[in-house]
Amino acid sequence: MRIDGRKNNQNRHIKITRHYTRYAEGSVLIETGNTKVICTASVEERIPPFLKGKGEGWITCEYNMLPRATQVRKVRDITRGKMDGRNMEIQRLIGRALRSVVDLKAMGERTIWIDCDVIQADGGTRTASISGAFVALVDAVNRIHKHIPFSIYPVREFVSAVSVGIVNGEKLLDLCYEEDSNAKVDMNIVMTDSGKFIEIQGTGEKSPFSREDLNDLISLGERGIKNMIQVQKESLKVDSLWIGTGEEI
Amino acid sequence: MRIDGRKNNQNRHIKITRHYTRYAEGSVLIETGNTKVICTASVEERIPPFLKGKGEGWITCEYNMLPRATQVRKVRDITRGKMDGRNMEIQRLIGRALRSVVDLKAMGERTIWIDCDVIQADGGTRTASISGAFVALVDAVNRIHKHIPFSIYPVREFVSAVSVGIVNGEKLLDLCYEEDSNAKVDMNIVMTDSGKFIEIQGTGEKSPFSREDLNDLISLGERGIKNMIQVQKESLKVDSLWIGTGEEI
Amino acid sequence: MRIDGRKNNQNRHIKITRHYTRYAEGSVLIETGNTKVICTASVEERIPPFLKGKGEGWITCEYNMLPRATQVRKVRDITRGKMDGRNMEIQRLIGRALRSVVDLKAMGERTIWIDCDVIQADGGTRTASISGAFVALVDAVNRIHKHIPFSIYPVREFVSAVSVGIVNGEKLLDLCYEEDSNAKVDMNIVMTDSGKFIEIQGTGEKSPFSREDLNDLISLGERGIKNMIQVQKESLKVDSLWIGTGEEI
Amino acid sequence: MRIDGRKNNQNRHIKITRHYTRYAEGSVLIETGNTKVICTASVEERIPPFLKGKGEGWITCEYNMLPRATQVRKVRDITRGKMDGRNMEIQRLIGRALRSVVDLKAMGERTIWIDCDVIQADGGTRTASISGAFVALVDAVNRIHKHIPFSIYPVREFVSAVSVGIVNGEKLLDLCYEEDSNAKVDMNIVMTDSGKFIEIQGTGEKSPFSREDLNDLISLGERGIKNMIQVQKESLKVDSLWIGTGEEI
Amino acid sequence: MRIDGRKNNQNRHIKITRHYTRYAEGSVLIETGNTKVICTASVEERIPPFLKGKGEGWITCEYNMLPRATQVRKVRDITRGKMDGRNMEIQRLIGRALRSVVDLKAMGERTIWIDCDVIQADGGTRTASISGAFVALVDAVNRIHKHIPFSIYPVREFVSAVSVGIVNGEKLLDLCYEEDSNAKVDMNIVMTDSGKFIEIQGTGEKSPFSREDLNDLISLGERGIKNMIQVQKESLKVDSLWIGTGEEI
Amino acid sequence: MRIDGRKNNQNRHIKITRHYTRYAEGSVLIETGNTKVICTASVEERIPPFLKGKGEGWITCEYNMLPRATQVRKVRDITRGKMDGRNMEIQRLIGRALRSVVDLKAMGERTIWIDCDVIQADGGTRTASISGAFVALVDAVNRIHKHIPFSIYPVREFVSAVSVGIVNGEKLLDLCYEEDSNAKVDMNIVMTDSGKFIEIQGTGEKSPFSREDLNDLISLGERGIKNMIQVQKESLKVDSLWIGTGEEI
Repeated sequence: MRIDGRKNNQNRHIKITRHYTRYAEGSVLIETGNTKVICTASVEERIPPFLKGKGEGWITCEYNMLPRATQVRKVRDITRGKMDGRNMEIQRLIGRALRSVVDLKAMGERTIWIDCDVIQADGGTRTASISGAFVALVDAVNRIHKHIPFSIYPVREFVSAVSVGIVNGEKLLDLCYEEDSNAKVDMNIVMTDSGKFIEIQGTGEKSPFSREDLNDLISLGERGIKNMIQVQKESLKVDSLWIGTGEEI
Repeated sequence: MRIDGRKNNQNRHIKITRHYTRYAEGSVLIETGNTKVICTASVEERIPPFLKGKGEGWITCEYNMLPRATQVRKVRDITRGKMDGRNMEIQRLIGRALRSVVDLKAMGERTIWIDCDVIQADGGTRTASISGAFVALVDAVNRIHKHIPFSIYPVREFVSAVSVGIVNGEKLLDLCYEEDSNAKVDMNIVMTDSGKFIEIQGTGEKSPFSREDLNDLISLGERGIKNMIQVQKESLKVDSLWIGTGEEI
Repeated sequence: MRIDGRKNNQNRHIKITRHYTRYAEGSVLIETGNTKVICTASVEERIPPFLKGKGEGWITCEYNMLPRATQVRKVRDITRGKMDGRNMEIQRLIGRALRSVVDLKAMGERTIWIDCDVIQADGGTRTASISGAFVALVDAVNRIHKHIPFSIYPVREFVSAVSVGIVNGEKLLDLCYEEDSNAKVDMNIVMTDSGKFIEIQGTGEKSPFSREDLNDLISLGERGIKNMIQVQKESLKVDSLWIGTGEEI
Repeated sequence: MRIDGRKNNQNRHIKITRHYTRYAEGSVLIETGNTKVICTASVEERIPPFLKGKGEGWITCEYNMLPRATQVRKVRDITRGKMDGRNMEIQRLIGRALRSVVDLKAMGERTIWIDCDVIQADGGTRTASISGAFVALVDAVNRIHKHIPFSIYPVREFVSAVSVGIVNGEKLLDLCYEEDSNAKVDMNIVMTDSGKFIEIQGTGEKSPFSREDLNDLISLGERGIKNMIQVQKESLKVDSLWIGTGEEI
Repeated sequence: MRIDGRKNNQNRHIKITRHYTRYAEGSVLIETGNTKVICTASVEERIPPFLKGKGEGWITCEYNMLPRATQVRKVRDITRGKMDGRNMEIQRLIGRALRSVVDLKAMGERTIWIDCDVIQADGGTRTASISGAFVALVDAVNRIHKHIPFSIYPVREFVSAVSVGIVNGEKLLDLCYEEDSNAKVDMNIVMTDSGKFIEIQGTGEKSPFSREDLNDLISLGERGIKNMIQVQKESLKVDSLWIGTGEEI
Repeated sequence: MRIDGRKNNQNRHIKITRHYTRYAEGSVLIETGNTKVICTASVEERIPPFLKGKGEGWITCEYNMLPRATQVRKVRDITRGKMDGRNMEIQRLIGRALRSVVDLKAMGERTIWIDCDVIQADGGTRTASISGAFVALVDAVNRIHKHIPFSIYPVREFVSAVSVGIVNGEKLLDLCYEEDSNAKVDMNIVMTDSGKFIEIQGTGEKSPFSREDLNDLISLGERGIKNMIQVQKESLKVDSLWIGTGEEI
């Protein structure tokens, strides 16, 4: 049995609170066990320079942690004077994950800024961010849709993420921080509702892994992501009806 | 009547949630109306270089806003590449306010880091930060006290803060954002439980103010701070028994 | 008697030298005792982006010290790689003080840059900067006026500043550095010729102060500011005739 | 047939030039088709602070491109004032890849700095960097070994990397830049000589991929990596005899 | 005899490889003894803001070293967070040297970016950079000329550079690193094919020098530069036919 | 006749005011015509890390301009976020010039910081800085000498600097800003009292110059530097008696 009593193939308890803060077009608090992330989606009626004239929109993400989200206080980026490499890597990952399920042409010439700010970190913050940010994104897209209806609804399908890993020889789903620190192999998987992969990032810095390990971990991840998408659906309910209609409305 | 139905001399509803996040020695969510700030106090068993050999401790503060705490998304400091002047001013103010009611010698050679991160901003974030951070500080001090009892308990008395201002000719207590944007005169007051001032910062950039105005505003502030200290006391209850004992325990 | 022989309610000797350097539209050396600040006002026929389309001008300030203005050499901001928090706070204060007495609409769509560079610091550099910068500002405004007369002269009235504080139980006007380092309470006051306040910033980090203390200090400050404005008037003489005419010329 | 006449499962021509520059302990020019990277390994007899007292060594990497390695000149990081997110991600990947095949305890308390500087970029620069840097690393380790023989030779086995992807529905090995820009799915694989994975990073931002796609791409990668390791072995020849002896020498 | 067997007035072996990398409009590897610099010239059809409306082009340079070009690894500028003063000085020198022999009006409204990246440093990197960059520049200019012929060919004449110095009382041409570190006087000379000087920078930080020394060193430099220009000419051959035609073509 | 009525071989009026500010160990205002520079020398009883254990002292310089020292306001370095290349070049030059006439071993393990802050710039600020900084340096050295006498007085001889150039075909000494902007050739010369050169930096970016031009300009510079050293001597008078005694005192 695991440190928190879970089975190897069990997610932590997931809770999604929509409309968590007042001003953002989409604002979600996602909790997976003790990991808590505020995900907001902000609509800006402008696009970045590299998209000028392409008739497309953009989704970009920034990820950060409050200094005391962690067991030891982490110095703020602005105090160190440069952005943390890990933060940068994570926010690029979140951006790719969300863009992959959105029809950027249908979205029109606007940018949606995703901000994921971790207020409590107990492992799996990047995957929780993706899962929570998707819900915030849908809320923001619906907010636009209410005022200026899209002719093609831009969100194509649900997307979610989960971590898996090998700890003490056991293959585990949804690692908490203590498991994560002891993992020989650590993998983050981003998958859509239709069971397709957006991103697989597995690393065995402490111990190389076999092809068989890879297969087992991916199966475990598929299971965890299905659970997460179930919670996203329950949270969004009727507000997710348009997702994937993929046609003129 | 004011925009939110309050009387001129009335505080917004105040709510203090202690132990808001798991890892910090002190962790508080303070809400004053729609303003919400996470205040954490982190203990570090080191002191900054300028205090070496003085046998004293230190309290320092960092203040920031989540990008979408505000109605329009604010670019992160690390993205702009430099710290916001307003943030810097505010965190210096919070640090002074807390240090003023703590016996730094009694605290011993350690640093308490205060982090105030605004998750929703509707005016008065700096004063809410001071009021909330004080409670987080007491929790952190008590945490130390439990393990290595102080011979002199270092917190001397309660401290709290509130904003006041002149809006459309009316003198108002505890301004919300919309009132604040229209204020001709804007003042922040930091005061102790014994009714002494730690800091008064009044500015009439849009319209100079008279000495009479100043007196009225300060009286209004005194009232608001008493209310706030009342809430702090109810929140801390028995955990505030040591405050101000000012003698060997 | 004070360290330099002054009475408690006495300003240091004030000297204002106009046209101190050649190129700036306004250029003043202000000396208050051993404190010396070069204040220049530079006219730029552009406005910052946030004012576009508002038909107003802007006044902004930068404040700095030469590295050896102080008893111990201070590292330059560019060497440390970030702006000093204290500098930032001060330049924001100076900007607010000057804007408060100028009709920015009447000024037209231009920016006046105020630069205050301290060449010798013996306490009270921020208040000397405000008092000196006001004179430089008037010279710059008059320079514009000579070429393209304003229909409404934009400077509404004189503004000046002074510091007061409590040192060893005595309430003192215009603190020198040694007094300032020992002050329990330290206050900066910005006031107009008509006796209205623009800014009051009092801090009792080392020792809270009572309402009575506050009243005494403000009275002391009013006295000091009147003296300073007297010197500004003598320095500007006929060049200040237009100030506060507040009507079409 | 592919743009450069290769078959889908064929690597580009690989060339490894050892001792490319004079001063580094290991210095390699690796060419894969038109991609050219200078990889150096520098030995420093110090360890980073976080390893103090652990009796281990460290391997860290920095990756960069010359401004005109690419078809359009790229602004230098120092000119933009911040490090490129992509560079940071890549150098973290290279570091992990090399550390995974080295016994850091056996290496002793020293740091090996890997510098990968791309002088010509035609796709696959990060995988070429890993493959080239491994050879430079072995040369640097041998240089140490000659002077102060290790009791356990620290390099455990060969490691190499390759990219694979799906372009126009075809699964391709070792993508050149033009293929890479049109890839729907893009994957980088790091694998050891024993056929174990160190890192798998696959992304389908433009088009999600199925589990079957994943399996095919990994098989293709395994083939490419075997070829690359073959070239590394031919290049190092007798100088690789110690690798993986994994025991006292 | 010198450390590497040369006579005092002898250049090191010079080798210029054109078309060293694929993408830049001009790309040269210059080797002078063990010093190796990659010089590229990139054409951009834009001019910097300060030239707007002047009908002229611009040539600008950036100079850098790979971290392990030197005997001890040098920290990258982006890691230190600021540009190296020496690099900045050198790139300004290279820019001036090249602009001095180009008719910027004839060049038209475009910028040529020169990048000099030292891959191996054994003294004289700045002079080698100038000599190599000139050849890259000519290749870039000819590339433009092929597509949109200039009415006046903009390169007026050859320019080259060399270092000279006084080491152990001996006046030496083209110092290698070890000589350079022991030089009492160190001088860099930039000269045109017609024997005119563009730049003379001599410094005797460790030992002042007489006017006679100066004259001897300059004569030595003239000799060295003539040799270098000879190699440039052999390298460019027919591609240098237009240089200095200075008239309509 | 020149713009300001001088003869071609005539210096501008030079004025050196010692003890210009109170706190620095040496503090000089140097004026050459309309160019005005505050030069301070600050003694710090520490040496930079690279000198540890060598038993030597160090002299380092920082150079800057007040924003409105010039006809058009110049943005501060800290606002632009990086140091100006020209400033960096100049402060390196000043540092070399002063170190060249000081016996750093005799100076003992301390650093003298030279700060040159231009308050009014009319050409020749770097040469005025060197000439003024030398006087400030001597004052600082004497200040040390008074408290802890040197066994060997560390200043070996006077050093001074001047600019020369070719403007409209005329060779001119000590260029003012307007002359400097029109100069085809521009040269800065640093020379000692014994007529030896420390530094020669000549540039003909706009027009190459002949060896004859070089000779004439240097002769002109020698003349100008002799005049400057004369003024330094008159300013220092008896306080320069120890200079160059070069032996135990």
